[in-house]
Amino acid sequence: MRLLLLNANTSAGVTELCAAAARTALPQGWDILALTAPFGAKIIESRVENVIGAYALLNMLAEHHAAADAVLIAVSYDTGLAALRDVAPCPVVGMSQASLLTASLLGDRIGLVTFGTPHLYRELAASYGVGERVAGIEVAKARAAEAYGAPHKVREAAHEAITRLVERDGADVVVLCGAAFAGMAEGLASEVAVPILDGVTCGTRLCAMLAGLALPRGSAKAPVTGREGTGLSAALAAMLYGPGR
Amino acid sequence: MRLLLLNANTSAGVTELCAAAARTALPQGWDILALTAPFGAKIIESRVENVIGAYALLNMLAEHHAAADAVLIAVSYDTGLAALRDVAPCPVVGMSQASLLTASLLGDRIGLVTFGTPHLYRELAASYGVGERVAGIEVAKARAAEAYGAPHKVREAAHEAITRLVERDGADVVVLCGAAFAGMAEGLASEVAVPILDGVTCGTRLCAMLAGLALPRGSAKAPVTGREGTGLSAALAAMLYGPGR
Amino acid sequence: MRLLLLNANTSAGVTELCAAAARTALPQGWDILALTAPFGAKIIESRVENVIGAYALLNMLAEHHAAADAVLIAVSYDTGLAALRDVAPCPVVGMSQASLLTASLLGDRIGLVTFGTPHLYRELAASYGVGERVAGIEVAKARAAEAYGAPHKVREAAHEAITRLVERDGADVVVLCGAAFAGMAEGLASEVAVPILDGVTCGTRLCAMLAGLALPRGSAKAPVTGREGTGLSAALAAMLYGPGR
Amino acid sequence: MRLLLLNANTSAGVTELCAAAARTALPQGWDILALTAPFGAKIIESRVENVIGAYALLNMLAEHHAAADAVLIAVSYDTGLAALRDVAPCPVVGMSQASLLTASLLGDRIGLVTFGTPHLYRELAASYGVGERVAGIEVAKARAAEAYGAPHKVREAAHEAITRLVERDGADVVVLCGAAFAGMAEGLASEVAVPILDGVTCGTRLCAMLAGLALPRGSAKAPVTGREGTGLSAALAAMLYGPGR
Amino acid sequence: MRLLLLNANTSAGVTELCAAAARTALPQGWDILALTAPFGAKIIESRVENVIGAYALLNMLAEHHAAADAVLIAVSYDTGLAALRDVAPCPVVGMSQASLLTASLLGDRIGLVTFGTPHLYRELAASYGVGERVAGIEVAKARAAEAYGAPHKVREAAHEAITRLVERDGADVVVLCGAAFAGMAEGLASEVAVPILDGVTCGTRLCAMLAGLALPRGSAKAPVTGREGTGLSAALAAMLYGPGR
Amino acid sequence: MRLLLLNANTSAGVTELCAAAARTALPQGWDILALTAPFGAKIIESRVENVIGAYALLNMLAEHHAAADAVLIAVSYDTGLAALRDVAPCPVVGMSQASLLTASLLGDRIGLVTFGTPHLYRELAASYGVGERVAGIEVAKARAAEAYGAPHKVREAAHEAITRLVERDGADVVVLCGAAFAGMAEGLASEVAVPILDGVTCGTRLCAMLAGLALPRGSAKAPVTGREGTGLSAALAAMLYGPGR
Repeated sequence: MRLLLLNANTSAGVTELCAAAARTALPQGWDILALTAPFGAKIIESRVENVIGAYALLNMLAEHHAAADAVLIAVSYDTGLAALRDVAPCPVVGMSQASLLTASLLGDRIGLVTFGTPHLYRELAASYGVGERVAGIEVAKARAAEAYGAPHKVREAAHEAITRLVERDGADVVVLCGAAFAGMAEGLASEVAVPILDGVTCGTRLCAMLAGLALPRGSAKAPVTGREGTGLSAALAAMLYGPGR
Repeated sequence: MRLLLLNANTSAGVTELCAAAARTALPQGWDILALTAPFGAKIIESRVENVIGAYALLNMLAEHHAAADAVLIAVSYDTGLAALRDVAPCPVVGMSQASLLTASLLGDRIGLVTFGTPHLYRELAASYGVGERVAGIEVAKARAAEAYGAPHKVREAAHEAITRLVERDGADVVVLCGAAFAGMAEGLASEVAVPILDGVTCGTRLCAMLAGLALPRGSAKAPVTGREGTGLSAALAAMLYGPGR
Repeated sequence: MRLLLLNANTSAGVTELCAAAARTALPQGWDILALTAPFGAKIIESRVENVIGAYALLNMLAEHHAAADAVLIAVSYDTGLAALRDVAPCPVVGMSQASLLTASLLGDRIGLVTFGTPHLYRELAASYGVGERVAGIEVAKARAAEAYGAPHKVREAAHEAITRLVERDGADVVVLCGAAFAGMAEGLASEVAVPILDGVTCGTRLCAMLAGLALPRGSAKAPVTGREGTGLSAALAAMLYGPGR
Repeated sequence: MRLLLLNANTSAGVTELCAAAARTALPQGWDILALTAPFGAKIIESRVENVIGAYALLNMLAEHHAAADAVLIAVSYDTGLAALRDVAPCPVVGMSQASLLTASLLGDRIGLVTFGTPHLYRELAASYGVGERVAGIEVAKARAAEAYGAPHKVREAAHEAITRLVERDGADVVVLCGAAFAGMAEGLASEVAVPILDGVTCGTRLCAMLAGLALPRGSAKAPVTGREGTGLSAALAAMLYGPGR
Repeated sequence: MRLLLLNANTSAGVTELCAAAARTALPQGWDILALTAPFGAKIIESRVENVIGAYALLNMLAEHHAAADAVLIAVSYDTGLAALRDVAPCPVVGMSQASLLTASLLGDRIGLVTFGTPHLYRELAASYGVGERVAGIEVAKARAAEAYGAPHKVREAAHEAITRLVERDGADVVVLCGAAFAGMAEGLASEVAVPILDGVTCGTRLCAMLAGLALPRGSAKAPVTGREGTGLSAALAAMLYGPGR
Repeated sequence: MRLLLLNANTSAGVTELCAAAARTALPQGWDILALTAPFGAKIIESRVENVIGAYALLNMLAEHHAAADAVLIAVSYDTGLAALRDVAPCPVVGMSQASLLTASLLGDRIGLVTFGTPHLYRELAASYGVGERVAGIEVAKARAAEAYGAPHKVREAAHEAITRLVERDGADVVVLCGAAFAGMAEGLASEVAVPILDGVTCGTRLCAMLAGLALPRGSAKAPVTGREGTGLSAALAAMLYGPGR
């Protein structure tokens, strides 16, 4: 079984952090193919960078879906999630939907720690049906890029943000919303009284869980016949419109 | 690792169906303790029977929580879920929340098949944040008690209900909401083009997934000191108020 | 005519406070039967204690419904309300629904004073359709149990909480959410410029109002035939499944 | 004690029906002053007629509030309710808010019978927080004006509408939304299995209930000083801006 | 083409401010008829004053609609908007709906500056579907009446309020909610980094835009036959019930 | 002044229809630059095709924004709207948001005519705050591609759909949701009693209206310094990260 881990950021360092966390979370019998977007923002931080990232992810999916049993989108905006889910032949999980739904199985009041753009995460949580359970959103005083250069600084900033969410907002479960937080949850959890979740770990485990259900591919997801596109890569055209288009 | 599967119905036959489905879904290294409520409705079908069932579940949890790594509530109303989650020392999963959240990872429009009381399931779905994604709710033309006497009849009724949900309401994923449907999803899925989920399978897999996160018990869930109750079983009093109360 | 006042707390002192307030509010021609839960929490303060209280209330209803023209649930979480309403042969009113709906007839912005657990009252208000009209929730700096030992202290704490709700949140009507506040509204109202409501007074008056409508019992509320339960008291089994079950 | 019953329609026949129903519902010690709007629509059926009716009601209130202990707005759109409530020195109840809140104390799924404009009643129900509990709205096949000429026809049309709401929509309580239905609920209730409510009866009883609370007038409702209006009747100017303005 | 600008306040000074702003915003080929309410509040600041204003507006519309190609309601509560829209033979635009919808075309988080009653503006925004996009509401420290006596003071107070909305609440577009702010947006916009909108300018431009669509009058808006009113002006009776009524 | 009309479909025929409709709607002094996406779906009909279209639009904007005073997205899913709005130096309008907000200025109950995927339009309407005002969505029995080959057929199918929306759902205003409907509204409106709106006409007029406000560019929209992307066209990199990146 193979997990296809797709990073829409162009930072290979983030991909490595995510792949390491995913490897720890995968059950026996799974391996992992982790890919970095070939173009786009170094670290996605805006709607327009998500537009670029979604197109990059779609091309990556088109090239590699044949070999995948599940796909994890390893960017905290769940870039392109609904669209990729519509066309992929296997389950597609976004790291933030994964951690937010896991949080809603554990607590009443969810705190979020991010590297910025809290209003985009508020929209995301609402779109997944957990908007009213968000107790608060804290921006960590660190930059995502520091996660592989100065992880200690990121860890400390996350710790401070968690403390504010628990003490000020009454959060009883906290989600780390940022690919660059991958792998930090476990360490932080030992220091606070509430569960700490990171999206790559939750998403990897949910990928394995969904793949284990051995569900049929929905007919709605077959390539559509009688339609066409132009200027797409061969792999993308084939995934969307069938071989030979 | 041990799954504590609690059936709030007093029908041992339903417990057996659920335990069998759970055994199939559990990863290696887990065993299962499946218990039937000692008092209450044979098959819960109303709010008042849920009140009775919740009290029965709470007593069952008090007796057996020490041995559990995760708890699955095996009744489709997720009887007592929020309350049990507040006091259990390990993750507590309700079979309907489990299947509804899993469905929201797979599709846009969720169909529900039930043995009755669609308005209660509509309330339940809304409380989990997926109310607006419910495409339709169909009552299967069979009784829950027939699941262990005449499973073929239940299976056929479920198949008909699924077909209506897919063709009339455009459901792209279907959840079987009823403990007595346990284990039927896989067979039905081979006949239709959309994923079919049952709560016991989804719930069991999510129990294992949550237990794997090795989360600390939230401090909010410790027994409360300085308070007291009367007329409770020793186990229940100890779970709520600490040993010796 | 008889009001059945059911206290799901096991504190007889609270029952007495509530009964006294109810007596003042009842019209001529009514008497009152006030009962204290035989088991459960001294003062309910959590979801799990509500589960216990709901089962206790259900048994109390089963024993005494024959003699009642209306039932008042005298615990501020409206423990078991929807379930009891489904099976009782007469109107069932919860003290908090009563005071919140009364408040919505009087003002735009409702303030709530509680003894704790503000998030549970927020949920309750939302479930009654007045969630968006809640201007604020203040926890009084006193314990419920002090209401019959040190009523002056409770009264003062309520006064402070009311002042914050009016001045900081712009509340134009305030509800005292706690059975132990029973009877305190009138005195407090003379000191502030907005109406102060307590649930027992509002609930008692609404019980009398509903009983006066002389409504038929809904057919949906008749005992259900063809179903059964086990391990229930004779009275409870008879109420739910008909005599002789 | 005196109930001021204000009919915003200019049909004296409707006022008489409402006054008769109110008299039946009032407790001992109350009398009633029932007034018909001096100008406006014969029977209000649109938003613009409500604008006219609200201005008429406001003038009626200004003339007569001094003698009132409670005010009932006897038009099913609750014309001008929030505005009158803001300035009246005593409780103001709208007949539809009264019946809808009463319904929410009795059942889960509310059916509405109207003489037309269902979308306006849907808006009204939503504004009172019971929008999601509306099971259906049925337009009775009769005209409001027939209520005092051919009451049998109106009664029959209401009966048919109720039957559709119960059988097709699963309503477990039905509200008659129309001043011209005043007094018909009791007779209809004997023929169906669910409670039937009419707004004048519910509103009258809630007026008495609120007046019994002996609440202080909110300071927000005192005439505003330092502001002024022009071209208003002396009574209206005095009510809004203080005597002598 | 003619714009009918209706001010529901009785302050001619406000009408002049609004007319001046409208003239600047109108395209070539349009003139303007600006009218002040003949009775009612000098400056509307409450629900009850809106009731009076709506009736005044309705009479003004009845007198003058024949000559109008579009109607702008120049009072920031959009007094009587839905009712006037139902009966006018041409588009009717409220200044606050106009500016709020324009804001939603420009930004994510809308700030509102008002002269008071923030809760009424919050209700208004919610009724137009933009409630969740309101980042904050600030009351300017000035009175509406000062806009034509001491415009500098009003301008300064607006500037301060805008700054708070941008810096504290993250507003990325700000709406001036008050007829007396008419014409101030352009000057203020040069000083801050976000777009500033005033309702008269937006409303005037939307009136011209809608009139340019040359839409047919909806049949629902024709005078209703077979109904009647009493005590109305001849013009109002004719508009509602047809000539000769 | 110049309108930049961006068609995310790769069908030049659709671009021509839209440009023709836009030319009719533009005020004097404006010209138009209408562009067709260089790659992607012939006619966008799914989420994944919108992902491709959004990336194409972003590149088109980067090439041509310098010459534009307003941008109209001429695809009925408003592909990429929020993202383009975040970075464009001038107003960006989506044709469906334009027509839906215009509809909400004209009526209470909006009907939508589409070429397919009604659930995506329901999501779109909800995201703009008009979800609860959607009376119904009808799929026209014609294909978008027929609009420039067999316009009569498309027109007839639209007429039938409109009739169903008005008669069955009570729509009082109808929006044609499809770029290929451009220019058809006026002709259809003469045949029915309610206003018919098309997105290109509404969007063009709103572009001109917004450009006329002469708003400053929000500071939030300046190129972000200190960030970077890779593999982007020079124009796109310059628009997002500043010249020379």
